[in-house]
Amino acid sequence: MITNTTLTCAEAGSGGGDGGGPVVAGGNGDQERLARAGLSRVIEPGDLAALKVFDGLPAAEIWDRLQQNAPGLERWSTRLADANPHRDLERAATAGARFVIPGDDEWPDQVEILEEAGQLTRRAGVPFGLWVRGQANLRQSLTRAVSVVGARACSSYGEHVATELSAGLADAGVTVVSGGAFGIDAAAHRGALAVPGTTIAVLACGVDVSYPKRNSALFSRVAEAGLVVAELPPGCSPTKLRFLARNRLIAAATQGTVVIEAAIRSGALNTAGWAEQCGRAVLAVPGPVTSRMSAGSHLLVRERNAVLATNVADIIEAISPYGTGLTQLPRAPQSLADTLDPDLQRTLDAVPVHHPAPATRIAVTAGLDLPTTQQSLEALTALTLITQTPTGYHLSPPPT
Amino acid sequence: MITNTTLTCAEAGSGGGDGGGPVVAGGNGDQERLARAGLSRVIEPGDLAALKVFDGLPAAEIWDRLQQNAPGLERWSTRLADANPHRDLERAATAGARFVIPGDDEWPDQVEILEEAGQLTRRAGVPFGLWVRGQANLRQSLTRAVSVVGARACSSYGEHVATELSAGLADAGVTVVSGGAFGIDAAAHRGALAVPGTTIAVLACGVDVSYPKRNSALFSRVAEAGLVVAELPPGCSPTKLRFLARNRLIAAATQGTVVIEAAIRSGALNTAGWAEQCGRAVLAVPGPVTSRMSAGSHLLVRERNAVLATNVADIIEAISPYGTGLTQLPRAPQSLADTLDPDLQRTLDAVPVHHPAPATRIAVTAGLDLPTTQQSLEALTALTLITQTPTGYHLSPPPT
Repeated sequence: MITNTTLTCAEAGSGGGDGGGPVVAGGNGDQERLARAGLSRVIEPGDLAALKVFDGLPAAEIWDRLQQNAPGLERWSTRLADANPHRDLERAATAGARFVIPGDDEWPDQVEILEEAGQLTRRAGVPFGLWVRGQANLRQSLTRAVSVVGARACSSYGEHVATELSAGLADAGVTVVSGGAFGIDAAAHRGALAVPGTTIAVLACGVDVSYPKRNSALFSRVAEAGLVVAELPPGCSPTKLRFLARNRLIAAATQGTVVIEAAIRSGALNTAGWAEQCGRAVLAVPGPVTSRMSAGSHLLVRERNAVLATNVADIIEAISPYGTGLTQLPRAPQSLADTLDPDLQRTLDAVPVHHPAPATRIAVTAGLDLPTTQQSLEALTALTLITQTPTGYHLSPPPT
Repeated sequence: MITNTTLTCAEAGSGGGDGGGPVVAGGNGDQERLARAGLSRVIEPGDLAALKVFDGLPAAEIWDRLQQNAPGLERWSTRLADANPHRDLERAATAGARFVIPGDDEWPDQVEILEEAGQLTRRAGVPFGLWVRGQANLRQSLTRAVSVVGARACSSYGEHVATELSAGLADAGVTVVSGGAFGIDAAAHRGALAVPGTTIAVLACGVDVSYPKRNSALFSRVAEAGLVVAELPPGCSPTKLRFLARNRLIAAATQGTVVIEAAIRSGALNTAGWAEQCGRAVLAVPGPVTSRMSAGSHLLVRERNAVLATNVADIIEAISPYGTGLTQLPRAPQSLADTLDPDLQRTLDAVPVHHPAPATRIAVTAGLDLPTTQQSLEALTALTLITQTPTGYHLSPPPT
C-alpha cells in the first residue's frame, strides 16, 4: 500500500509520464475525468491487485502516481506509454460517446455496490467511469431496469421468451439491460426496441467496437433508442476476463437479473452470481427439463434460491419495493358448483346427466337421507343447475 | 354425538337392518372386516358429517349403530338397504381383489395421517379399508413410493417426461402411484410398467370398474405387475367428490407427490395440496412458460414452495431421509484454463490465437508488467496452453 501523499495532479501533469499528456485541461471536473479515462485504459476492469494497492485513493492521485512511475506500481507501467486520455475522450466523442464518472448527473450510483462486493470476490471494484454512447440519460434509464441474460446458443423457445418478456418489461417502463451477445441478449434488446422502449447494451469492449460484428446494426439501433455502455475505453477488444468483469456491471446496475436459458457452464450464471452478491433480485425462467439450455435456470431455482419467473408481472414484483408491484396470482375460474355446501355438492354429483332419476334413487347414490336429498334437489333446481321432470331430476344442460 | 354403548356386533347381526346380513362370519377379524366393508359402502370417502359423529368409535360399533337405525344417523340410512358386505367381499374375490383393513399385514399405516389432516380440512379421514386388486403386497409396495400426477389433457412434453421419470423411479426401486386417468397418470403407470417396476393405480371407483374405459387394458397390466386400489367397494362409479377424496389417499400413501403439467384448475394441484397437509414432499416439474399446461407446476414452485424437480435424482433426494439420497449437482466441466491464477489467466487472454506476438506486446494487452508477463508466458508454455515461436507466442491448437 502506498500512503496518502500530497502530490497534486498539476505536478503529475507537468512531471508525469510521457504517454498521458497534460492531465489538467480545465477545472477539477476535467482533471478528474482525464485521470479516470486514463485509469480505464491502464487498469483492467476488476483488477484485484489494483483494488488492493489503490484502495480508497482518489482517482486523480492514483493516476498521478502511475505517471510518476512510483515504486511498487511497475505492474501497470507497460500500458502507460499507450495511455492518452485526451485522445480517448476525443475518440469517444467522434463515436458519439461520452465518459460518465462519479459525481456526474448521469452517474448511476448503484454500481458503487461493487466496492463492497469487491471485498467478497475478485474482479469486483467500481468502474473508474463508464463510456456511454446514445441519447438517453444513463442514470435515469437505470432507475427501473432489469438485466435479461442467457445463452448465446439459445433455443427458439428461449429466443421467443426473451423477446416477449423484454417487450413486456419495456412496455411497463422498465429498461432492459443485456450484453449484446447473440442469442438471448440480442433477443432481449430486440424485444425492448420493438415496443419501442429503452434498452442498454453493456459491452466487454469499447463502445465503438462491434462485437460480435454481426450485431453491429443492432448496436446502432440500441444506441439510437437507448444506450451502449462500456467500462473499457474506445477501441478495446473483448477478452474472457472482460466478459466476466462486464457481467458484474450488468448485475450491479440493475434491480434484478433474469436468466433465460443458461447451460450449466454459462456467463449468465456468472451474472446471476454477481446479482446475488450485490443483493439484487435473481430470477430464472423455467423451460423443458429435456432441454440442456434450461439446466442452468433450473439450477438457480433449486440450489440458489432464484425466483421462478414465468411472466412480466413476476419480474416486476421481484424488483419492486416490498409490498408493491405484487403479481396477480393466476386463479382458477370458479364455477357456481364449486361454491356449493358439501351436501348440495354430493346431491349434484348424484344427479344423472340425461335420464331423470327419482329423489329416492339420488339419495342412495349420494349416500344422504331422503329429507336432506329432497331439500338439496329443491335448492339445486332453484339454482337451475338441475331440471325437474315428471320422473325425476337430471342435470341442466350447460349454458351455451 | 352418540355415546359409547355396549351393543355388540352379534346383537346387531341378529337384530339389525335387513340389508347387511349376518355380520359375524367367523372370528373378530372377519367381524371387523365385514363392518368396515359395510361402512365403505354406506359412508362416502371423507364424509365430514360421519367424521364428526363417529370420531374415535370402533368400526364395528359404528356399523352396529347404523344397522339399528339409531336416532341421529338417518343421514346414512338410505344406503343401508343396499349394503351387503358379504356380497361385496364375494364380488371383490371374484374380481381378484381383497379388502385390506387396519391391523392387516398389508395395511399401509401412513394413510392414518389423514386422521390428523381431517382436523384441518373437509373430505379427510382414514379409509375404513382399501379394496386391492393384484399380487403385490400393498404395505411393502408403498414403503418407497412416489405419486406422479398431472393433467389429463397433457402435452406430448408432459407425457414424455412422465414416462421417463416414472421409468427412472421404478428402475430405482420406487413404486409409482397415480390415478389411472388419461394423460400424465397413464404415462406414469406405463413408464413404470416398461421397466418393469411396481406401479399402483388408486381409483375413484371400484377396483373392478374401468374408468376411463379406454384404460381398462392398462388397469389389467397394472393389476398384474402392481396393484389397483380403491377406497370404494366393487361396482362403484366415480364422482367429482370421489376424485377429490381419492387424491387425499394418493398423497397420504406416498412419500412425495410429483406434479407434471397441471393447469391452474387441476386435480393434480388438489393432490399436491393434500401432500403438503400430510407433510409429504411436493415436487413440480417445470416446463415452457408458454405452455398453459405447466402453469400449475410453476405456481406450486413460486407460491407454495414445491421443490423444482428436473430428474429422478431430484425426486429421490426429496423423499429420502434428511442427508441421504442427495442429488449430484450438475457441474460445469473445468478446463485447465479455469484453474489458472489471475495473472496467468490475463496473460493467456492476451496471447493471440494464430499470429505470434512478442512478450512486450502481450504485456501491454494484458496490462501487466514485463517480468510478470514473461514469467506467465513461461508457465503457460510449460502447460502447453501456448506455443513459443521465434517471433513470439500464440495459443496452442486445442487438443483433438
